[in-house]
Amino acid sequence: MMAAKLNFLNKIRPALCVLFSALLITPARAEIPDALYTALGLDKDVAPNVLYDALVKRYRDPEQGAGEGAFADLWEPIPFSAYMAPQNFYQGPDLDIEVSRTECVECHESVTPGWVHSWENSVHGNLDEIRGLDASDSRHYKQELIGQVETNLHSMGLLEEGQRLNDVGCIDCHMGVGVESGNHKTDLYMPDAASCGQCHVQEFAERESERDTLDWPQDQWPDGRPSHALSYIANVETAIWAGMEQREVAAGCTMCHTTQNTCNSCHTRHEFSAAEARKPEACSTCHNGVDHNEFENFMLSKHGVIYNASGDEWDWELPLAQAFEQGGQTAPTCQTCHMEYEGEYGHNLVQKVRWGFNPMPEIADNLDHPWFEERKESWVATCTQCHSESFARSYLDVMDQGTIDGIELVKEAKVIMQGLYDDGMLTGQTTNRPAPPAPDEDAPGGFFGFFASQGNNPTAIDVEYAEMWEQHIMKHFKGLAHVNPGGFTYSNGWAKLIRSLARIKDADTTLREKADMLARIKKLEEGN
Amino acid sequence: MMAAKLNFLNKIRPALCVLFSALLITPARAEIPDALYTALGLDKDVAPNVLYDALVKRYRDPEQGAGEGAFADLWEPIPFSAYMAPQNFYQGPDLDIEVSRTECVECHESVTPGWVHSWENSVHGNLDEIRGLDASDSRHYKQELIGQVETNLHSMGLLEEGQRLNDVGCIDCHMGVGVESGNHKTDLYMPDAASCGQCHVQEFAERESERDTLDWPQDQWPDGRPSHALSYIANVETAIWAGMEQREVAAGCTMCHTTQNTCNSCHTRHEFSAAEARKPEACSTCHNGVDHNEFENFMLSKHGVIYNASGDEWDWELPLAQAFEQGGQTAPTCQTCHMEYEGEYGHNLVQKVRWGFNPMPEIADNLDHPWFEERKESWVATCTQCHSESFARSYLDVMDQGTIDGIELVKEAKVIMQGLYDDGMLTGQTTNRPAPPAPDEDAPGGFFGFFASQGNNPTAIDVEYAEMWEQHIMKHFKGLAHVNPGGFTYSNGWAKLIRSLARIKDADTTLREKADMLARIKKLEEGN
Amino acid sequence: MMAAKLNFLNKIRPALCVLFSALLITPARAEIPDALYTALGLDKDVAPNVLYDALVKRYRDPEQGAGEGAFADLWEPIPFSAYMAPQNFYQGPDLDIEVSRTECVECHESVTPGWVHSWENSVHGNLDEIRGLDASDSRHYKQELIGQVETNLHSMGLLEEGQRLNDVGCIDCHMGVGVESGNHKTDLYMPDAASCGQCHVQEFAERESERDTLDWPQDQWPDGRPSHALSYIANVETAIWAGMEQREVAAGCTMCHTTQNTCNSCHTRHEFSAAEARKPEACSTCHNGVDHNEFENFMLSKHGVIYNASGDEWDWELPLAQAFEQGGQTAPTCQTCHMEYEGEYGHNLVQKVRWGFNPMPEIADNLDHPWFEERKESWVATCTQCHSESFARSYLDVMDQGTIDGIELVKEAKVIMQGLYDDGMLTGQTTNRPAPPAPDEDAPGGFFGFFASQGNNPTAIDVEYAEMWEQHIMKHFKGLAHVNPGGFTYSNGWAKLIRSLARIKDADTTLREKADMLARIKKLEEGN
Repeated sequence: MMAAKLNFLNKIRPALCVLFSALLITPARAEIPDALYTALGLDKDVAPNVLYDALVKRYRDPEQGAGEGAFADLWEPIPFSAYMAPQNFYQGPDLDIEVSRTECVECHESVTPGWVHSWENSVHGNLDEIRGLDASDSRHYKQELIGQVETNLHSMGLLEEGQRLNDVGCIDCHMGVGVESGNHKTDLYMPDAASCGQCHVQEFAERESERDTLDWPQDQWPDGRPSHALSYIANVETAIWAGMEQREVAAGCTMCHTTQNTCNSCHTRHEFSAAEARKPEACSTCHNGVDHNEFENFMLSKHGVIYNASGDEWDWELPLAQAFEQGGQTAPTCQTCHMEYEGEYGHNLVQKVRWGFNPMPEIADNLDHPWFEERKESWVATCTQCHSESFARSYLDVMDQGTIDGIELVKEAKVIMQGLYDDGMLTGQTTNRPAPPAPDEDAPGGFFGFFASQGNNPTAIDVEYAEMWEQHIMKHFKGLAHVNPGGFTYSNGWAKLIRSLARIKDADTTLREKADMLARIKKLEEGN
Repeated sequence: MMAAKLNFLNKIRPALCVLFSALLITPARAEIPDALYTALGLDKDVAPNVLYDALVKRYRDPEQGAGEGAFADLWEPIPFSAYMAPQNFYQGPDLDIEVSRTECVECHESVTPGWVHSWENSVHGNLDEIRGLDASDSRHYKQELIGQVETNLHSMGLLEEGQRLNDVGCIDCHMGVGVESGNHKTDLYMPDAASCGQCHVQEFAERESERDTLDWPQDQWPDGRPSHALSYIANVETAIWAGMEQREVAAGCTMCHTTQNTCNSCHTRHEFSAAEARKPEACSTCHNGVDHNEFENFMLSKHGVIYNASGDEWDWELPLAQAFEQGGQTAPTCQTCHMEYEGEYGHNLVQKVRWGFNPMPEIADNLDHPWFEERKESWVATCTQCHSESFARSYLDVMDQGTIDGIELVKEAKVIMQGLYDDGMLTGQTTNRPAPPAPDEDAPGGFFGFFASQGNNPTAIDVEYAEMWEQHIMKHFKGLAHVNPGGFTYSNGWAKLIRSLARIKDADTTLREKADMLARIKKLEEGN
Repeated sequence: MMAAKLNFLNKIRPALCVLFSALLITPARAEIPDALYTALGLDKDVAPNVLYDALVKRYRDPEQGAGEGAFADLWEPIPFSAYMAPQNFYQGPDLDIEVSRTECVECHESVTPGWVHSWENSVHGNLDEIRGLDASDSRHYKQELIGQVETNLHSMGLLEEGQRLNDVGCIDCHMGVGVESGNHKTDLYMPDAASCGQCHVQEFAERESERDTLDWPQDQWPDGRPSHALSYIANVETAIWAGMEQREVAAGCTMCHTTQNTCNSCHTRHEFSAAEARKPEACSTCHNGVDHNEFENFMLSKHGVIYNASGDEWDWELPLAQAFEQGGQTAPTCQTCHMEYEGEYGHNLVQKVRWGFNPMPEIADNLDHPWFEERKESWVATCTQCHSESFARSYLDVMDQGTIDGIELVKEAKVIMQGLYDDGMLTGQTTNRPAPPAPDEDAPGGFFGFFASQGNNPTAIDVEYAEMWEQHIMKHFKGLAHVNPGGFTYSNGWAKLIRSLARIKDADTTLREKADMLARIKKLEEGN
């Protein structure tokens, strides 16, 4: 339906232009997706406190993705877990003293000056400066946001009607919005996304809506995943993560899977800068490396080249929706494309997701399902902000077909690996292949093979195949998706898939020839 | 000859200095190389239109490198090909309407605002602003360039004598310089380098001169290659590119091989910024990765470190020739060294090429040929802008000898690979080694092994050897050439060559021992 | 002792805060470590010339780490060596002319304008500009430094009492401080760190103190190493470096091991900028790549992300000690943490070193030795400038335990490799395993395996194991230490250790099964 509508619009666009060339479609801040209201059973016009309460109830519900997940009895937190999943593991320090709103800042100015400096740079530390900004200032739009925050707090009873917000200090986030004092041991907590959401209801709702906008039509992924909103549960319910013995190494995985638990993955504490979060580097800590190298691909694409060459002249304080027209931006960043949906910008980054991170045959087979087609049309709309529709469609086809081509190589390898496994021919398979750590189960080229080596499990080609399906294909796809030629031809992607496939076929032939030799030797021995 | 002259100059330099210390050699914009006029059979003082016509004739001549090349019957374009080789494949959209000069901009302001914003930032969109610049402005030199453009257009009859250029809008590049209106379906085209060359004759001639300045004395490479000017034909005449089935993956190679077809590989549309094209990032989209990692090497060299640390304080609007003296530049970028030739700067980047991308034994054997020696002297002149001659020569020797050392490892591997291949001993060679896709032909470690896997072709060590001769040696060389120590010791280069060589020797021993075992088993079986 | 003191301080901190919240601990320039005075047998209040003479005596003493080292008779310098170890190998050019202070600059303005431009940007070239700076200028502190330089020169008799320094030109560093003229052939030298140290005694002493502050309690490393102060001797006394035939490739190693010989590794000639040396890129040329990828890890950490997103707004001209409070800095760079020690900043970067570059079992076993514990407390003090103590300790534990986990994988691989080696089962071990180039000696997975391949030495798994102990474990550790999750989970570190271990085990099984097959064939043959 929507695709058809868009097609129609695209067809009559030129005519529209000629007739109404004055019409400018101004991008804007997104509204909270309807799907969220539906999921929560709320009307769209509910008061902020009602929306917030419903959001928090779901956010903190272990039945709906909060907490330690299905394998909780298999792993123990480490002290550092307190900072990655504070709702579950944080306890205040052993400082049984009463502290006041002003004392927090005063004392931490000397004991941890770094975070106080950051806060001093923040909007939180400068509400009055923001309130005094001239309309010409790029940050002027934040005045409206402060007003919204006050409306939210009024609605929740955290700020008296008619009162405005005087300041946002340590205590508001770490002991409670508006409280004047508390006990440094028993009252102190580490904020989660719901803490931020008290003031920033819309942003909280936007990010929480990611759960509601990924309802895979053929169950290719669990509902709501992969998304930032359910990233922690996705982490702790990964079998090898739960099962591996080395908890400090496992903590490395978790360090990126905290977007569910905090807003500070992108808006680094304690400045919580919007400008910082608009830059591609904000995504880079997590979106880099062997299986999610979006950052590298972007930086080497034409988009990234322009960002690198000119980005320091763009006005990063402007909202994304105004960055091109008023801020001098001339190329997209991660945020420009992934936070946009139908011309509007918000904190739901998954409304256009089609492939869902790891390209699977199950998705390739269904790209002409309406669910996928509608999402592709949304991408066309995104790209045509700067490119012709013909260009956009022809490149999206390159991306899709190129990805499908890569998947074919993975499928070819899978057949060989399964064949060797079924025939018991992997190196040491019959003599020395222990099961992976529970709750994981053995399989040729399982994900566990990146994290645990026991006996001959994994073998060299188990790892090779795991790299194919979990890394090379993803880099291939991400190279295509981010228009970095080397990312999908032979620096990464395709050539790495081919190399692994060649190694697997080489091993297949070698292992089977060895088995044949052994059989011949055995026959000779029996004959003697 | 030239080398001798330079040596003489270098020797008397100090004396010259003491006597005439006021003499400053000011770098300047390059003239079009004589070799181009010779190749085109033109006098140096021909009118712009004559030069242009001769350039375009050659540029678009399939006999001289234009078009789809010798394997054209083996591959089909995909829709996206229209944007990579527009002369061959682009057709206007199905919009049979007449549009005027002003309507282009007005309509696209709403349908594709991104590219209009870029054009609004460009010189094209701001001729009068440029004309009004004070002599102190870094962009003041562009006034002269506009004058040259007008001279060119007068000469071609595209601008009436006495008239000046009012504006450069969409229509000038996409329908014809100076036309007032056209049909959006039938008149619209995608510009190629010749389109840009109508106004920018000298720049077009400079880049086209790359064909004429690479005349390899011992045919190590085809004449005119490797160069930007013939990059597309080099792509489409690569056997595996033409032969591989997955055209969308092959498109990734083409995406970098478009410099022949367009100027916008470096001057990104639609700002076509000179400042952007002066930054190393402009080169990075193509010059990175497994076999052309110049960008990575530069960025980790001392040159790159200074660029990274200080580059945002340099004046990028100045011409390259003035950047050090007036623009605060304190370290070279890609452009500083590669666009310079004998003290002047232009769009021919290959006049100092000696090794030619992929270091070959054929080049190593001839480094003392006058052709190579003259080019080395040109490099000495480049480096001695900032370094002593002794420093420059001693480092260039490190670079050459280090590269030769690397080539020796490749040669050692080649002998082993050829031995195994000749003896039919590669894994599966006698049972399951299909030929690569036509027009390619089988060989141990062929280039095709990065792109196609069929049966046991390539084997694991075919790929290993292909990486040696096509990737590790190139990264080794590029690390040396760009003075990145890790680039040629053990992060890349040498240690990777050694590792591949060790793996190949390991396989050589293993495969031959296996053959011996098989022979012994067979003998035993025959004895029974 | 110190740890206990710090713990006590940490416990009473909050109380102190509440009572004396006005107390601010201002970071400051470090004093020269006592350990240096002790090592040199000097009182702390000696005159600059006495300190300098003692420093230079040790710095240039071949018995104490100067010069060509223990393997000097095995290798020959190449021409470029003159620039890496000038004290040993540099000779002036063949220009037997007398030149004056002003002539240096005048002539080189035309022959090598690049380095003159850099000097023109430097403090050396602008002493009077610095002297005239207002107290509000970020570089104002350099006035005090110039005063110190003058005090040093007075003390050494290189500047007459009462006189101030007029200028610092080419001749001061290349012929002698304060001389008016010299012979371009016989008087010219390349400066070493002692040359810089004449004026910059404190900085020279600070960097030289690195030798004195690394006294490993259980001899895990040679005293004073690994450090910048003894990096050249560490290079030339590496067996494979001395033994390898390809001197130009070996030169690549040396290019980073010059910090012992020069200050210009970090303060690039001829601007010698402090601001540049404060940026992470200054460390990047050496601290990147396969075994020291600190730069990559930093850049992908949250620290690096903030640097990338905001660093161009920080005031880099301020001393490190003021960068956070006055310069707007909001995240640490390499320098912030590694040049800091107990709240002060200086040129000794190794006072907090615990693991010492390459994590070894010998260190893991002794992390609760007081030496290590005191250093860990110093790190806690560093981190708690911005983080809570609880956060800092819990992360430092992740780092240590995660590293120990990685070491366990290396140990597991070592047992297998030693077993194969002892049993003579490595590929070709009994038929074709020459010794590595002298003075190196054969061992399974020796470091030489990155640099030399002779026969079947190294085999494929020798290299694999060498990568484990010398590269993967180091990247694992550096990823942990610099808080880059992908750096130690599966982009690098742990997963690469696991992969190599899997390959080694695969080969172990395969090689032993082959030996068994061979034995069975032999038995069959003997039976016939």
